[in-house]
Amino acid sequence: MLVNGQHFRTIWLDEENPARVKIIDQRRLPFEFVIETLATVEDAARAIHEMHVRGAGLIGAAAAFGMYLATQAAVRDEPTWWQALNQAAVRLEQTRPTAVNLKWAVSRMLQRLHTLSPGGSPSTPETFAPRRDTARARPEVAVQSPVEAARAEAQLIADGDALWCRQIGEHGVQLLQEIAAKKEGQPVQILTHCNAGWLAFVDYGSATAPIYAARRKGIPLHVWVDETRPWNQGARLTAWELMQEGVAHTIITDNCGGHLMQRGQVDVVIVGSDRTTGSGDVANKIGTYLKALAARDNDIPFYVALPSSSIDWELRDGIREIPIEERAAQEVKQVRGWSGNGWLDVAIAHPESPAANYVFDVTPARLVTGLITERGICSASRAGLRALFPEKFSAA
Amino acid sequence: MLVNGQHFRTIWLDEENPARVKIIDQRRLPFEFVIETLATVEDAARAIHEMHVRGAGLIGAAAAFGMYLATQAAVRDEPTWWQALNQAAVRLEQTRPTAVNLKWAVSRMLQRLHTLSPGGSPSTPETFAPRRDTARARPEVAVQSPVEAARAEAQLIADGDALWCRQIGEHGVQLLQEIAAKKEGQPVQILTHCNAGWLAFVDYGSATAPIYAARRKGIPLHVWVDETRPWNQGARLTAWELMQEGVAHTIITDNCGGHLMQRGQVDVVIVGSDRTTGSGDVANKIGTYLKALAARDNDIPFYVALPSSSIDWELRDGIREIPIEERAAQEVKQVRGWSGNGWLDVAIAHPESPAANYVFDVTPARLVTGLITERGICSASRAGLRALFPEKFSAA
Repeated sequence: MLVNGQHFRTIWLDEENPARVKIIDQRRLPFEFVIETLATVEDAARAIHEMHVRGAGLIGAAAAFGMYLATQAAVRDEPTWWQALNQAAVRLEQTRPTAVNLKWAVSRMLQRLHTLSPGGSPSTPETFAPRRDTARARPEVAVQSPVEAARAEAQLIADGDALWCRQIGEHGVQLLQEIAAKKEGQPVQILTHCNAGWLAFVDYGSATAPIYAARRKGIPLHVWVDETRPWNQGARLTAWELMQEGVAHTIITDNCGGHLMQRGQVDVVIVGSDRTTGSGDVANKIGTYLKALAARDNDIPFYVALPSSSIDWELRDGIREIPIEERAAQEVKQVRGWSGNGWLDVAIAHPESPAANYVFDVTPARLVTGLITERGICSASRAGLRALFPEKFSAA
Repeated sequence: MLVNGQHFRTIWLDEENPARVKIIDQRRLPFEFVIETLATVEDAARAIHEMHVRGAGLIGAAAAFGMYLATQAAVRDEPTWWQALNQAAVRLEQTRPTAVNLKWAVSRMLQRLHTLSPGGSPSTPETFAPRRDTARARPEVAVQSPVEAARAEAQLIADGDALWCRQIGEHGVQLLQEIAAKKEGQPVQILTHCNAGWLAFVDYGSATAPIYAARRKGIPLHVWVDETRPWNQGARLTAWELMQEGVAHTIITDNCGGHLMQRGQVDVVIVGSDRTTGSGDVANKIGTYLKALAARDNDIPFYVALPSSSIDWELRDGIREIPIEERAAQEVKQVRGWSGNGWLDVAIAHPESPAANYVFDVTPARLVTGLITERGICSASRAGLRALFPEKFSAA
C-alpha cells in the first residue's frame, strides 16, 4: 500500500542483492520510516521476536524469508545442511508462540526443501519430520538448488499472503456496501482493534482489506482505531496506514469502543486474527474479546478477517488450546513514544508495582458474526469453515 | 490512608492558616508527592478542572472547600456577597460535567449559606434558587458568620465522605469474606478499573474500602489494577495506594481483564461510580462497561461501591441522561510519564491523526450484581435503592 504516495510491501528481496531481505522497521512508525536489511536467519528471528515485524501474515512471510536466509548459510556446509535448517526452523518457531502462520510458513519451507540437497539431487534426511501437508506433492518444473527453491518458495508465500488479503477485501467489501446502502450517504462506521492492516501482512491487510477496497469504490467510511495498549499498534500503525491511504479515522483508547457502540456510533467491527481454531474461536490481540462482547450486547456485527494460513485446523477449544504469549511487564509500565526529536520510554507506574502483560485473548466463536477469508465469508464454526475449505476436513 | 507510613487525607484545612486548603497534587503521583495550597475559588476550580484532584467524592469535597474559599472573598464585598457566591457555584459546577457529587456539594454549601448574611443575620437573596434538599431545616446551634458556617459545612462534607467510605468498607468486606471462605487460603482475586481509592475520596475510597477493610482482617487478597487509559489512574494512583497499604496487586492493560476472567483468575470486580441513576445505571470511567460485560459473560460478580452522594436520584436512563465529558484529544495521542528526572509527554500517534477522548461510560443496571453503599448492599434498581434510601423516593 502507499507510503507518501509510493507503493510498498512490508517485506521484499533486496533488489540490488537478492541474497538479502528488506523490511520496514515497524517499531519506529509513525515517526520514522526506516528500512532494515536482514542477512541471516538470526536477523530474521530477532526482527520477529523484537517486533520489527509483527502481525499474523507478516510473521509468516518473515519466517519464510528467514528460512531462505538459513538455506544460504546451510548449503555452505553441505554434509549437515539439513541439521542447520532444522535448527533454523526451531529458532524461528520459538520467536512468537501464538501466531500459527509462523509454524505454517516454516513447515511449508521445510517441506519444499526436504527433497533437495545442495548438489541438486533429492535427499530425505530423517530428522525432517513429515508434516500433515507433505502428502500433496508439488510438480517439479526443473531441478532447483536449495537456495533457489527457498527463495522461490518464500516469495510464493509472500505473494500468496498478498493475494489472499486482496481476496479478503473483495469478499469483505460486500458487507460494507450492504451497510452503506442503508446509511444514505453517511459514512460506514467501522471499529478495529490492533493492526490487522497491510503492515501486519505483506500487503492490503486482513481487517483493512475490505476498508481499502471500499475506499477504492468510493464508499464513505470512517474507522475508529483502538490505540491497542501496550504496544499501541492501533495508534501507531493502523492510524498511520489509514492516513497514508486517505481513509477518515479517529484514534480512541481501548476503553472507548463500548461507549461508542451504546451510542450507535459503530456499524460493524472488523478485526484480524493471530490464530483461529477449526471451530471458529479467534485468538487476536488482547482486548478483542471485550469488543466482541460489546458488539454482541449492542447487536453490532463482529467480523474477523483472516487468510486460511492463520487457521489451526485441528484445534477445537481456543481458550484451552491456544498458547497465549506473555511479554515483559516493562511494556506495560513504560510507554515508548516520540519526544520531538527521538524515542523515549516514560514510566507510568511506580517501579515497585508489578505488572502482567498477556498479549492475546481468545474470542469464542459464539461471539463472531462471521469469518472473512480468501474464499468467502462463513460462519465461525466447523460447518462454516468446512463449506469453504472441505479439503482441510477430509481426514476427519 | 498511609503515605510512607503517615496518615493522610486527600484534602484538609491548612493547620497554620485555616483560611486556606491543602490538597495532594495527584497529577504528580506516583513519582512525586506534592502538597498544594488553595487560596481562592479559582484555585479550587482549576485544581478540579485540571485534575490535581479527581474522583467522585474528592471532587465534591474540593468544591465544598472551594465554596468556603469563595465565601471568604465574598463577604469582603458585603452588598453583593450572594452574587459572588452564585458565580462561584457556577464556576465550580462547570469544571467537570459527569460527577454528580460536585453539584451535590455545591448545592449543600449554597443551602447552608443562603440563610446567612455577612453580619450574621439571616438573608434570602432571590437568586439562590431553592434546591430539592432545602426543605429539610437544619437546627442552628449558634448564629455563625458565613465564613465560619462555610468552613464547618465543607468540613462536614469531607468528614461525611470519609465516614461513608468507611461504612462502604464495612459492608463490602462481607462479600470478600464470603469469597475467601471458599478459596481455602488462596487470595481473593479482585479486579478494579480506574481509581476509586482513597485518592478519589477524602479517605478509604469506595471500591478500595472493602479491600482495605479485608486487609485489616487478614483476608488474603490480590488486586488486578487496570491501567485506565488515557490518564492512567490505575497504574499511577491505585497501584501506588495499594503499594503504600501493603496490598498485593498487579497492573494490567485495560485490554486484559476479559482474558483473566476467562481463565478463572478473577473472583469479583469492584469499581466506583461518578454518577449512578436512581434506577441503578452507573456512569464510571470509560471502559467500566466492557469489564461489566466480561464479568457477566464469565459469571463473575460485578459490584459498584459508592456513597449515596454520587446518586442522581431522579435519573432513570443513564445512557440517555448522563452527560459524558469529552476531554482533549491530546490526552489520548500523548502519554505523560516519568523520564527518570522529570515529567515528559511523548507522542504515540502521528500528529495528523485525529483522536477522541470520551472520559466516562454507562454500565446498565442489568450488568451490576449490586451496589455497595454506606447503608448496605442493594440490587442496582429503584427497588433496591428504595429499600436503603426510602426518603429519597418519598416524593415519587
